[in-house]
Amino acid sequence: MKTLAQAREIILTEFQAHNSLSTEIIPVQDSVGRTLAQPVTAELSSPHFHAAAMDGVAVAAASTFGANPAQPIELQVNKDAFYVNTGHVLPDNTDAVIMIEHLNVLDEHRIQIEAPVFPWQHVRKIGEDIVATELLFPRNHVITPYCLGALITGGIFKVPVKRKPRILIIPTGSELVDWRSSTAALKPGQVLESNSYVIGNLAAEAGADFSRSRQLMDDPAKIRTAVQAAVKGDVDIVLTVGGSSAGSEDYTKDVIIGLGEVLVHGVTIMPGKPVIVGKIGNKPIFGIPGYPVSAIIAFEQFVKPLIDQMRGQPEQARPSIYVEPTRKVASKLGLEEFVRVKLGTVGSRVVATALPRGAGCITSITEADGIIRIPEHMEGLKDNQAVKAELIKPAASIDNTIVAVGSHDNTLDVLADELKAGTTNLSLSSSHVGSMGGLMAVKRGACHIAGSHLLDTENGTYNVSYLDKYMPGRNVRLVNLVMRDQGLIVPRGNAKGISSIEDLARDDLAFINRQGGSGTRILLDYKLGQLGLDPARINGYDTEEYTHMSVAVAVLSGTVDVGLGIFAAARALDLDFIPVVTEQYDLVIPQEYFESEKIQALMDIINTDTFKTRVESLGGYSTEKTGQVII
Amino acid sequence: MKTLAQAREIILTEFQAHNSLSTEIIPVQDSVGRTLAQPVTAELSSPHFHAAAMDGVAVAAASTFGANPAQPIELQVNKDAFYVNTGHVLPDNTDAVIMIEHLNVLDEHRIQIEAPVFPWQHVRKIGEDIVATELLFPRNHVITPYCLGALITGGIFKVPVKRKPRILIIPTGSELVDWRSSTAALKPGQVLESNSYVIGNLAAEAGADFSRSRQLMDDPAKIRTAVQAAVKGDVDIVLTVGGSSAGSEDYTKDVIIGLGEVLVHGVTIMPGKPVIVGKIGNKPIFGIPGYPVSAIIAFEQFVKPLIDQMRGQPEQARPSIYVEPTRKVASKLGLEEFVRVKLGTVGSRVVATALPRGAGCITSITEADGIIRIPEHMEGLKDNQAVKAELIKPAASIDNTIVAVGSHDNTLDVLADELKAGTTNLSLSSSHVGSMGGLMAVKRGACHIAGSHLLDTENGTYNVSYLDKYMPGRNVRLVNLVMRDQGLIVPRGNAKGISSIEDLARDDLAFINRQGGSGTRILLDYKLGQLGLDPARINGYDTEEYTHMSVAVAVLSGTVDVGLGIFAAARALDLDFIPVVTEQYDLVIPQEYFESEKIQALMDIINTDTFKTRVESLGGYSTEKTGQVII
Repeated sequence: MKTLAQAREIILTEFQAHNSLSTEIIPVQDSVGRTLAQPVTAELSSPHFHAAAMDGVAVAAASTFGANPAQPIELQVNKDAFYVNTGHVLPDNTDAVIMIEHLNVLDEHRIQIEAPVFPWQHVRKIGEDIVATELLFPRNHVITPYCLGALITGGIFKVPVKRKPRILIIPTGSELVDWRSSTAALKPGQVLESNSYVIGNLAAEAGADFSRSRQLMDDPAKIRTAVQAAVKGDVDIVLTVGGSSAGSEDYTKDVIIGLGEVLVHGVTIMPGKPVIVGKIGNKPIFGIPGYPVSAIIAFEQFVKPLIDQMRGQPEQARPSIYVEPTRKVASKLGLEEFVRVKLGTVGSRVVATALPRGAGCITSITEADGIIRIPEHMEGLKDNQAVKAELIKPAASIDNTIVAVGSHDNTLDVLADELKAGTTNLSLSSSHVGSMGGLMAVKRGACHIAGSHLLDTENGTYNVSYLDKYMPGRNVRLVNLVMRDQGLIVPRGNAKGISSIEDLARDDLAFINRQGGSGTRILLDYKLGQLGLDPARINGYDTEEYTHMSVAVAVLSGTVDVGLGIFAAARALDLDFIPVVTEQYDLVIPQEYFESEKIQALMDIINTDTFKTRVESLGGYSTEKTGQVII
Repeated sequence: MKTLAQAREIILTEFQAHNSLSTEIIPVQDSVGRTLAQPVTAELSSPHFHAAAMDGVAVAAASTFGANPAQPIELQVNKDAFYVNTGHVLPDNTDAVIMIEHLNVLDEHRIQIEAPVFPWQHVRKIGEDIVATELLFPRNHVITPYCLGALITGGIFKVPVKRKPRILIIPTGSELVDWRSSTAALKPGQVLESNSYVIGNLAAEAGADFSRSRQLMDDPAKIRTAVQAAVKGDVDIVLTVGGSSAGSEDYTKDVIIGLGEVLVHGVTIMPGKPVIVGKIGNKPIFGIPGYPVSAIIAFEQFVKPLIDQMRGQPEQARPSIYVEPTRKVASKLGLEEFVRVKLGTVGSRVVATALPRGAGCITSITEADGIIRIPEHMEGLKDNQAVKAELIKPAASIDNTIVAVGSHDNTLDVLADELKAGTTNLSLSSSHVGSMGGLMAVKRGACHIAGSHLLDTENGTYNVSYLDKYMPGRNVRLVNLVMRDQGLIVPRGNAKGISSIEDLARDDLAFINRQGGSGTRILLDYKLGQLGLDPARINGYDTEEYTHMSVAVAVLSGTVDVGLGIFAAARALDLDFIPVVTEQYDLVIPQEYFESEKIQALMDIINTDTFKTRVESLGGYSTEKTGQVII
């Protein structure tokens, strides 16, 4: 096991390949983004003649000396003075241009000037911009669109660039399905192969060409054959994806040992720990772990630096800023963890909310604005203490983010989409921690808005009494987003004929509950109270889940017969839904943000017919109170 | 004439085109960089089955309750416990995975555990990453390589994206030459057309497709016909380049008036002032000025924001930092000037050196690290006062820049190239202000190194006595870079048979001198003194130029017969050269930087044989003292 720094050092030292890419001569117009293999010097000067830099007349400066308003000097057109436009060649024996607006035109043949001009005034001299033989760009310079101007002007129409590094990606794993060829529905255990496209496109962004080989089963002989062919081919770097760990079906390490040598197996990072670095002949081969986030981090930390080195480019660190985690983040001593975070500017702080930690969650990186690295020697991050985050998205977009923390509802997705469709540049980032978690986030100053559906069982109202109780004195507004149906989630077809809350007491049914403090649990208990139904009679009342989706999953997998949740969760898994109650889902918004442009733009969208129509069309929602400011 | 803000407001309001791009459905693997035309929701959940998240055995958590080291629980393999690898489907009636290393394997059929596990431990539940029907990405989201992972995993194989905006570029100007078709040498007055490639590739980087029409002569009828055809075609934005000013051959404005309306003619910016914004039918047409830097700034300020708007993207401001100009920069009241600057971190400050201001100098933007905008209401920048610069190059590269200010020599180009060829990530930025200007820059703390060749006419030594005189007490080092030939630059063939300094007194010769204080002027005066030759006898002694190249240009254009300068200047313009004296060209380096890694890396390169060989091969140089630390 190596540290990150050790593994990188080994890779960059072992494959001192930065001069190994051959040179291609390509047309200048195709050269943007490419790296110069050799210094390029100008063939032509620019201008290559003395050129008028203004519209006016060209003169010999000496012929103007002594002119003043009292004693203007008269010049003969086409003898002492020559009309020129910008860019024209300066006529012989002239060395200055007088702007047209500074002339007195006496007639067709004569002009008069009232002030002298100095030599080379308004003249672009030969070589003012580019001198033939001078260096235009040094070796390893990356060509930008601007550079095309200097190259063409300097007479360089073919450019010597480094060939792009070639990367071959070999996906391995018996569970993998190729989405391009498979039309059948996925079977349990099957996984759509996507890593090769992600890694390949990251390699392309880093300036490499990538190709993808057909995916392989977990069969050491086949993997060996493929790797052997790959290293003999004309690629510069070989990546296998999957099978890099130490499980009974992880064959990459043995294959590399059989054909060459393993330089690194395992790095003290998370995700990405089971990465393998090997060398077959002189060629680098990487065993990239199969979990999508592990694969990305292993690529970015180990393969990209090697591509940079081959291209002669410095590794560009991502820009970073200081952020404050909204809650403690635990981490494992001895591993450097890459925590994906959402960021948003709330008040004067940039707050960071950790996304799911699992290396299998691709959305934890697609949704991330940044990455906080927790060093090996630390056991985690404290809340509200500034720490550095590397930015994945531009810093400006963080200022334009509305941070939502609290209960999840699918209408927040519609809101996020409508916000992006508008002209405001705003985006909505939501983290799902339940209604009470949202109120606590408001209290801590960790968000702009919090979704909440907390029922007061005393009086049947929502949210208001909770604000009084948990945030006395905090000046907040409460805005209705939607009314939504909660109901019983049952298997498709509802074979057991479940129709109401009373049925939950049936002996032939297993129920699954939500955790204490969740809006849905409060709702269930309220309903049971109204019906006078003793919770002890419900089979499974004490089994708890934490989200609507987990409840639906339990129903889908047959673990239970019924649960209570929102329509959207049932629909997502194609389950049946029996509406039980309509509840109020509101946004809690601190007064200081309610007045802000951001939130007012959000309010504008909530009040549009477009938003309401889209919400209604989801099913399970009504919008009669949508946009109402409750307090 | 409009201000920048007014012109942008007119453009973005007039062409509220952000929803007008039609939708294309493209394969997911081709979608990186494209903009979603519609929100994309997942078709599949991920995982779509409960999956083992570790290698181990799957069990029902309840069957482990009560286990402890004193009373381990025994489980039957394939009855209560099932071996699984990461990613496998969880067998029926199991809900947790125990890692392989936490098992006691008793025999093939029995295992023992010493601790209970909780439900769902090491299990990736259905929908943990992605839930079918949930929003993956909102409309206007730009697809990254990461996104491919979420799209494919979510079952999205075809993606609805906005068609790219189409830009047509029409270069105009009778002076233009197409480098692709012209093989003849350029005639005076001709210019290689390059703007369309620069602007086109900037448009491509902004997410548009561009095409280029054949360039047109300054002929209003032809321009009119081309523009008419263009606006009727299927492009979204038409750009003419050149002819946008008010000169006698600037026809763009009249053409637009004839076919539609001119919304803006002239904006109070520099470069870029003569830009035209027009509308023909509903189509935007821009008259882009022909000077290369004007064209770039007009594109970036006016066309790119419109492309962004069409794509539904916020305009991303360039990152900016505070920098200190090393000298005053004057500017014109009433115009917002975009000053291109080189940047470098010298001590604790980021210093900015203004590049040539002319809009015709493409190298003023290819060499720039950033742009300082001087607002309309200001008359310039003060030196050593912090001001904001927008960064063109990454901030990290500024820290890795060695800032050289002083006398120019071509061997600095070789040094820059060798530095870029190495593994240090360093680059060299040089500004040419003469030897004395370099010493003053060292004194002001505005550079790391200064090139200098100041001759002490008392004793024939170089630089040392000037340091004593102008920087007493400043602890600096002096390192020889090269010995170089200064000599007489004369027309090719040397028809007048010039052979030595004495010839300068000949009546039939016109000479051009360098400015007082320049190393070359000091050298000439020293030589004249040695020879006892009275400067008054030299025809042209009082005519001064400021650079070696200007002297060579004066000789080339026939204005004079001879000047004094370095071999490289003669060679650049293919002139003859008569060596007169070998002079010492040194680097002045403050002690505090001399010790730094950056300068030590530079010293290492100066001392390589590769560097010396390349310098010798330029001609006019010798390297016997190269790398010697003189003081």
